[in-house]
Amino acid sequence: MISIDEQIKIITKGVEATISIDDLRGKLERAEKTGMPLIVKLGLDPTAPDIHLGHTVVLRKIKQFQDLGHRAVIIIGDFTGMIGDPTGKSKTRKQLTREEVVENAETYEKQIFKILDRKKTEVRFNSEWLSELNFADVIRLASRCTVARMLERDDFQNRFQEHESIGIHEFFYPLMQGYDSIELKADVEIGGTEQRFNILMGRNLQKDYGQESQIAIFMPLLEGTDGVEKMSKSLGNYIGIDEEPNDMYGKVMSIPDSIITRYFALVTDIHPDELAAIEKELGAGNVNPRDVKMRLAREITALYHGPDAAAMAEEQFRILFQRREFPDNIMGYEISPGISDSDGVDAVKLLVQMR
Amino acid sequence: MISIDEQIKIITKGVEATISIDDLRGKLERAEKTGMPLIVKLGLDPTAPDIHLGHTVVLRKIKQFQDLGHRAVIIIGDFTGMIGDPTGKSKTRKQLTREEVVENAETYEKQIFKILDRKKTEVRFNSEWLSELNFADVIRLASRCTVARMLERDDFQNRFQEHESIGIHEFFYPLMQGYDSIELKADVEIGGTEQRFNILMGRNLQKDYGQESQIAIFMPLLEGTDGVEKMSKSLGNYIGIDEEPNDMYGKVMSIPDSIITRYFALVTDIHPDELAAIEKELGAGNVNPRDVKMRLAREITALYHGPDAAAMAEEQFRILFQRREFPDNIMGYEISPGISDSDGVDAVKLLVQMR
Repeated sequence: MISIDEQIKIITKGVEATISIDDLRGKLERAEKTGMPLIVKLGLDPTAPDIHLGHTVVLRKIKQFQDLGHRAVIIIGDFTGMIGDPTGKSKTRKQLTREEVVENAETYEKQIFKILDRKKTEVRFNSEWLSELNFADVIRLASRCTVARMLERDDFQNRFQEHESIGIHEFFYPLMQGYDSIELKADVEIGGTEQRFNILMGRNLQKDYGQESQIAIFMPLLEGTDGVEKMSKSLGNYIGIDEEPNDMYGKVMSIPDSIITRYFALVTDIHPDELAAIEKELGAGNVNPRDVKMRLAREITALYHGPDAAAMAEEQFRILFQRREFPDNIMGYEISPGISDSDGVDAVKLLVQMR
Repeated sequence: MISIDEQIKIITKGVEATISIDDLRGKLERAEKTGMPLIVKLGLDPTAPDIHLGHTVVLRKIKQFQDLGHRAVIIIGDFTGMIGDPTGKSKTRKQLTREEVVENAETYEKQIFKILDRKKTEVRFNSEWLSELNFADVIRLASRCTVARMLERDDFQNRFQEHESIGIHEFFYPLMQGYDSIELKADVEIGGTEQRFNILMGRNLQKDYGQESQIAIFMPLLEGTDGVEKMSKSLGNYIGIDEEPNDMYGKVMSIPDSIITRYFALVTDIHPDELAAIEKELGAGNVNPRDVKMRLAREITALYHGPDAAAMAEEQFRILFQRREFPDNIMGYEISPGISDSDGVDAVKLLVQMR
């Protein structure tokens, strides 16, 4: 039996904000008393089906809830996907077709179970209830939010001020996401900080619809391997969860030392106390950051390929980059006279001869 | 057979704007060729069921279309009534209950047939189709308009700038009204000038949904009996269509001379040529405005009570105000001595004695 304080310590590891800790404590206490696990919601927008480590930040947090006995509900936003999350966008997004949405959702589902506990996870498509709402239901929902409030959202505000067009339908993305929380009676919703507006909308709507408000947990955005920009496929600074062990290990080793502890906090499941110990050691200079980073790389690789593959990837990395030895399968070639002089080997002549 | 030019002359009598005359001509020509009458739409918001002359301006115009052989479809906005038209409003309106809407709609229906030709009129409730729309349909509809475009509406713009709250659901009023035009395949929509935004929305939406756009006809607002303010019940400057013949006749006689021709144009069905003749006579000073106003009062009274009642009301008016005679049914009373002296009768003593 894990104490409430210990649960809160694990849950708040690495988070950017929790709204609110007091409410979270209340929900955890009730769960303990009633034996009813919390319902932890994560909404996935089925438009970016290739999961990289950046996406795992929220999934890891869900997994930590599951390890504490709680239940996850993953909402595949097949219905909202028809609009496309306007969050952080500077233009109206192209509406996905039904087929594109379904295809992307399937790809997503395959990947998330590399992280989540399948037995404690329910996957739902929000078209299940949203497609059932009629115009009167939609009006009721829309009446819960004002235009001014909606335009407070950073991205809408920017677009509005820059005279970029915002379709009225885009206002429904946050409202639908909030309605999902009502439908699920969600206790907790987890998302990136950019989801702040949408998740707090759910918190308000639940109250308007007579429910207890969900806890909002915001996870920071993960920097990519460059240590500066947000991890993203288009920037090329990402580590995909499907990458080969050697590639995965090597990419983690390429991150700057400054974000080692951040990666430990956000993309591994190590205990907060262990994280604190690592931070302390690194801070005191008692340890070579390279060794800590190797532990990180092995930890992350093991999560997706198992401990044996991770150990092999580490060994390979040592051989190639650390011992500066040749790997086993290098071809030998005897240099003939005439292509070397006192300055060394003439590379062009060597290549011509080897042809 | 009335020529297209003659039809256009009648249709445009008294209108503030027609968008566009060319399109109207095209539709009238097609109607003549195919024998299919035009569908002329009027939306009624079932929140103000007591019809006065101000409301009849648009109804008269519809009646003129009917007299030319076209069909009217009156939309009772029972569904939109749940939102309430935000046009010209400075605050979010209280949402009407279903029962209130239905009750008001029935009262409305009773009154409009005092003006319209029942055989050429279809009355529809927009809940018939709007309640059938699902969330996906609503999203499709909402995607046809931008937030900025919607906020160009004067009333929304004012409220937005004054930081008065606008519910997101209020954006749906113009969209629903536009959708009604799609549903009906309306050829013409008539409304007051304050309906400009809503009616042009229908024109745009029809095009977006692959239909020919409706003609928008805007009627001016009618001044009340004071000749200055818009006719309205709350200002007390109205003439109700249910008022007794004598009251109706008398109230028309109370309007200032300056708006006599405007009333002829907007709340009677006289022919445009006749209107022009009256304007000419009045302008040249060949006629006593009082006599023209008596014709107007008789014309209007006859529309709601028949020619005989109108003639009687005119006679009564003449007796009371013009000949300055007593009416027939005045009670006689003999003044006894002691309540009059050289200054005349003491009114208080007289009343005490008559008790």
